[in-house]
Amino acid sequence: MLVTPEREHKLRTVLSRRQPDLTVLMEQVNKPHNLSAILRTCDAVGVLEVHAIPPQKGLPVLEEAEAGKIRTYNDTSGSAAKWVGLRVHPDVPSAFAYLKGQGFRIYATRLSEQATDYRAVDYTQPTCILLGAEKWGVSEEAAALADGHIVIPMLGMVQSLNVSVAAAVILFEAQRQRLEAGLYERPRLSPQQYQAVWEAWSDPRRR
Amino acid sequence: MLVTPEREHKLRTVLSRRQPDLTVLMEQVNKPHNLSAILRTCDAVGVLEVHAIPPQKGLPVLEEAEAGKIRTYNDTSGSAAKWVGLRVHPDVPSAFAYLKGQGFRIYATRLSEQATDYRAVDYTQPTCILLGAEKWGVSEEAAALADGHIVIPMLGMVQSLNVSVAAAVILFEAQRQRLEAGLYERPRLSPQQYQAVWEAWSDPRRR
Repeated sequence: MLVTPEREHKLRTVLSRRQPDLTVLMEQVNKPHNLSAILRTCDAVGVLEVHAIPPQKGLPVLEEAEAGKIRTYNDTSGSAAKWVGLRVHPDVPSAFAYLKGQGFRIYATRLSEQATDYRAVDYTQPTCILLGAEKWGVSEEAAALADGHIVIPMLGMVQSLNVSVAAAVILFEAQRQRLEAGLYERPRLSPQQYQAVWEAWSDPRRR
Repeated sequence: MLVTPEREHKLRTVLSRRQPDLTVLMEQVNKPHNLSAILRTCDAVGVLEVHAIPPQKGLPVLEEAEAGKIRTYNDTSGSAAKWVGLRVHPDVPSAFAYLKGQGFRIYATRLSEQATDYRAVDYTQPTCILLGAEKWGVSEEAAALADGHIVIPMLGMVQSLNVSVAAAVILFEAQRQRLEAGLYERPRLSPQQYQAVWEAWSDPRRR
């Protein structure tokens, strides 16, 4: 027996709620505590796999990222990284080509003239939230390629939120819409995908 | 002239949206990046003043906190601290006595048998969100005194969110309800309160 029945039940419950059509693309997010907080949120709303374009120095908690490969993190601060896949892309055009090829609409979190309130987006459709670097946000290059720009209403003096906070506010709105639409009620992965992830998750070396 | 007309317009717009009856109580939150992210979120949803019970070592970005006094932070990471008041309390009973005296209902973010979904709370009423320390959450003492326990639905493997993420998810739900109820449309402060905050904000030494 690879896992206990209780563990199997827990793993299969979570796996049956994973949403292959909801994700984030992190463009040069570079602080480990933000990356860690974003991964915990992604796990909580059922994201199967996240995407990253690493800063030039490499991903903060992942030393040997290889482009095009799905990796899991091994950071010390939490276990979310073990349950959310990571796909690393070398640059903006590659990331967009991959995501658009998978049918995602990509929304940049960016204050611009064409930006709409994040609550107006239909997150039950295949959706990727594009998050920018802590200091300068989403790049011009990525913003120009995005399908839309979204903003979170800011009613105070400060212009922007912490990146992991912005990600969470949007992802929990997506979770709300997907709960309402019943998208967590039955498995969303194809049988092949489900089996592949199950084999990885139930490996006893994974704790 | 103390401030330019543009600056005055901006300051008065923000001040007219400040919500004296929405706040957070941070019980031993101890990481500066979390405190900073929580303050930015509070600014964005119009919180006038936050409350803290500092860890024994003192507040991370505030060295000379004095119990009972409203202070503003002077951290380097952002300006939100200049626009959100801070009231420090020495311990749980003092904080609760003060907040209950002000008419707040206090909701602890805590997974417990009596916890309800955070979206079921009416945040248009005077509301304080109680946030616990990063490692162990809200204390037993504070949880027992709270008016209710709320949880954010977690659909993954991990049991908890980052504290600044949890605060944001709840506060933006409060913002959504308060926008819908029209609570940002006209000043919520008493004329005396408004004048006192205006004088502090329009002081040219404050940048």
